[in-house]
Amino acid sequence: MDELKEYEVKKIEYSKILICVDSDDFESSRNAFNYACSLAKHYNAELGIVSVLETGDLNIFQSLDPEVLNQRREEIKELLEVYGKKAKEYGVQDVHMLVTEGGPGAVITEKVIPKFQPDLVIVGVEKKNRTRNTIGSQAAKIVNNSNVSVSVIR
Amino acid sequence: MDELKEYEVKKIEYSKILICVDSDDFESSRNAFNYACSLAKHYNAELGIVSVLETGDLNIFQSLDPEVLNQRREEIKELLEVYGKKAKEYGVQDVHMLVTEGGPGAVITEKVIPKFQPDLVIVGVEKKNRTRNTIGSQAAKIVNNSNVSVSVIR
Repeated sequence: MDELKEYEVKKIEYSKILICVDSDDFESSRNAFNYACSLAKHYNAELGIVSVLETGDLNIFQSLDPEVLNQRREEIKELLEVYGKKAKEYGVQDVHMLVTEGGPGAVITEKVIPKFQPDLVIVGVEKKNRTRNTIGSQAAKIVNNSNVSVSVIR
Repeated sequence: MDELKEYEVKKIEYSKILICVDSDDFESSRNAFNYACSLAKHYNAELGIVSVLETGDLNIFQSLDPEVLNQRREEIKELLEVYGKKAKEYGVQDVHMLVTEGGPGAVITEKVIPKFQPDLVIVGVEKKNRTRNTIGSQAAKIVNNSNVSVSVIR
């Protein structure tokens, strides 16, 4: 209580924000992306936009086929370019696009966050169906296992 | 992709923010409280500050003793008054203090959120020890079971 009494509220400033977008589901990413861009513009923060090529989504024959993988990679890159353009048009100055592969929760927690080192991670979650195995429902993994602040946006 | 191409980023506005503070752990609440006040001031939003009297924390004899319960209730009310004062001093105009009882995750998800109807819920999580059974470690319950956006702040 003494510690609280001496405390003064400090404005939180974020300099690096990471937004995870689901390449298969624009709906669950929309609010989260709006939130990420709003904060990034307000704080004049760097914005990382990451999307995961979910290799588990492809069946075993497709996943062995480098052409299918390459095609998905290109699609995701193209998608991220569009997201990046939208963020810039809105007024976010410093935008980075990141493509990665694997299980979304694990790869974001173990690879993307340690490398990009955001102050805040933002993930979108579908309101209706929380059991779908996408980056949305992987949010719990990111919340539980990463060591940074995470906003789960519905 | 077509839907994304036609989309424009919209600024997210929050009008009601709920911050959950742990009455036993100022440290894990500090950053979350800073974040909540920063956003509430920026958005000129109503700020609800909730703390849960964790009845499971008291042993069975204490929990049957209305005096012990009343004392804890008074302590939590006093604590919330201090938090409320800090928020107002910082510049948050509209502050509400809410005391409730039970298991933090469940009571916040099932009672406080449906009643207060926030746009965004903010919870603090202790960085070091994520298994402690406080409102911090109850964050996952709130993230998973509530139907609003939740920021888990470390």
